[in-house]
Amino acid sequence: MAEPVPGGISVLPVHGLPEFAPGDDLAAAIAGAAPWLADGDVVVVTSKAVSKVEGRLVDVPPGADREALRLQAVEDEAVRVVARRGPLAIVQTRQGWVVAAAGIDASNVTQDALVLLPEDADASARALRARLCELLGVDVAVVVSDTFGRTWREGLTDVAVGAAGIAALTDHRGAVDAWGNRLETTRVAVVDELASAADLVKGKLSGVPVAVVRGLPYTTTAGDDEGTRPLVRLPQDDLFPYGARDLVRSREPGAELVPRAGELAAVAEAFRVASAALPEFPVVLRHGGEGDGVVDVHLSDTPNLTTALNLGALLGAAIVQLHAEGWTTRWEPVGTPGGSSLVGRLWLGTPAS
Amino acid sequence: MAEPVPGGISVLPVHGLPEFAPGDDLAAAIAGAAPWLADGDVVVVTSKAVSKVEGRLVDVPPGADREALRLQAVEDEAVRVVARRGPLAIVQTRQGWVVAAAGIDASNVTQDALVLLPEDADASARALRARLCELLGVDVAVVVSDTFGRTWREGLTDVAVGAAGIAALTDHRGAVDAWGNRLETTRVAVVDELASAADLVKGKLSGVPVAVVRGLPYTTTAGDDEGTRPLVRLPQDDLFPYGARDLVRSREPGAELVPRAGELAAVAEAFRVASAALPEFPVVLRHGGEGDGVVDVHLSDTPNLTTALNLGALLGAAIVQLHAEGWTTRWEPVGTPGGSSLVGRLWLGTPAS
Repeated sequence: MAEPVPGGISVLPVHGLPEFAPGDDLAAAIAGAAPWLADGDVVVVTSKAVSKVEGRLVDVPPGADREALRLQAVEDEAVRVVARRGPLAIVQTRQGWVVAAAGIDASNVTQDALVLLPEDADASARALRARLCELLGVDVAVVVSDTFGRTWREGLTDVAVGAAGIAALTDHRGAVDAWGNRLETTRVAVVDELASAADLVKGKLSGVPVAVVRGLPYTTTAGDDEGTRPLVRLPQDDLFPYGARDLVRSREPGAELVPRAGELAAVAEAFRVASAALPEFPVVLRHGGEGDGVVDVHLSDTPNLTTALNLGALLGAAIVQLHAEGWTTRWEPVGTPGGSSLVGRLWLGTPAS
Repeated sequence: MAEPVPGGISVLPVHGLPEFAPGDDLAAAIAGAAPWLADGDVVVVTSKAVSKVEGRLVDVPPGADREALRLQAVEDEAVRVVARRGPLAIVQTRQGWVVAAAGIDASNVTQDALVLLPEDADASARALRARLCELLGVDVAVVVSDTFGRTWREGLTDVAVGAAGIAALTDHRGAVDAWGNRLETTRVAVVDELASAADLVKGKLSGVPVAVVRGLPYTTTAGDDEGTRPLVRLPQDDLFPYGARDLVRSREPGAELVPRAGELAAVAEAFRVASAALPEFPVVLRHGGEGDGVVDVHLSDTPNLTTALNLGALLGAAIVQLHAEGWTTRWEPVGTPGGSSLVGRLWLGTPAS
């Protein structure tokens, strides 16, 4: 049907693509199935197709425990666990994405394999873009999409995990609307909206892993192509680094720690936060010395039961705060019971895995 | 341009709409600007247009502090604050949405007003759908969209805050893919993807508050139209009820508490969590009695400095855990310094506002 109004866009499924396997030429397949690609189109490819041709698969041998292999693969792909409940792990991947199960999916793949996210989907997108230009002579943008959940909304939507030839964010900061109001925070994640639009025609069961968005004016990348890197929220801007239910974590007594840099600053900040949270416990924890993940904590020279209790409360709150910031800790008392001073050592690090 | 492949969709901006004001007939304006609407179209309307015609505005009198009024409006619209950093408050609204600043926007509105989210955008969508049927004789679905941030991704995307005539979630649970794998968790938030697709043509500065998605097969609502209610994540499924940076909260010493039910169970759970987190502090906090927000905490009958410190650590961790669960606390020691027992009272409640 002809467009009744100017300024519209089309979202077109690419039919007739084969099932992909490691080593297949994805670009050639797309060029063959969509010879109508044109300059300015945005080609949105499901990450699963990219992962399959790139061999980002975990074999599931006959008789193996598919679920156990899946859980192990999640651990292997994660740089940190953000939240966990039962078999559900929300983790941050090496690429910076925070996603359930590290984006590993056990569906839309033969039962003898699991599909990981592409190692570097931005690079995959750049390569695909270059090859489509070679094969068809067209200048298109490429978005690699995956299906993510959301923190406070039910249902999944597709977002971008890789991009090439298009700016991930449309930056309206500093722009002024028609009434003179400055648009301070309006940066639109246009590649995510493209991924969602493409998913409307790709669907989950229809075996259409590629769609094309046509007619959208977008900001092309010039020089360095940052791909989807601008979408990754940096730690200092993350208000939800850990799920509350998992905030206070169980730990095996005596579990090994791997020392980690920055422990003194982390302890100082944790003590500050603990003191602010517990105004009824008006004592000060002092600390000093560091190296190899150890911070000496000086509790009191002249303790009595009340100061010991108060110091303990701050120490407990500080340790929990350290856990919230991603540290693993071990407390080792140095002062002796009934003695004239209370001193201890706080060992900090990451869990030995 | 004609569609080169079957199964595509179009996203069409609706041009020529006027600036809206309270009492305007939004449906009539859309019918006038888009007489080409057809059965099966999805009409995506920016929530701001809905709020304006419904008068969901906060007046900003000349000389008033616009930012102070904005912050007050955020508090008024919030049922709880999920996280806060400086002027940024992420809150849950009465409608169940978790969103920065309660979805209140100070842009794309004259400087003498702030725009709130619609009171009930599902009802707005149903009314708009019915009126468009009356005016044009067409059976369309309606989505009311707003621009939300995401927890771990930079940039904003449009999502649905209201819907009518279309199932919010496409439920693939229980379906089986081509390889026999069950798709356990695939529920696509199709109305959110529609909102994102529409935003690609509406833009932020172009003054196009309505777009139409044409050609999408969707699940129509039969009988009760739940609108966007299925998208609201229920508390028991929320792994991120509080932001970690605000987890350990500062509090005015002596601030008043309003007693709240459930304090004994909350304290028991907090002690359990604290004990699991602090295996180096092998003592048990006991508690009993409740009512009016007070829980008696029995620390030790035969304390020494080490037990006092250990008990304090658990107490501090438990208090922080209570804060994480949304309680405000006050600790009142009852046992005397140097005495033969350590007992205290923990007052629990919500902050007096």
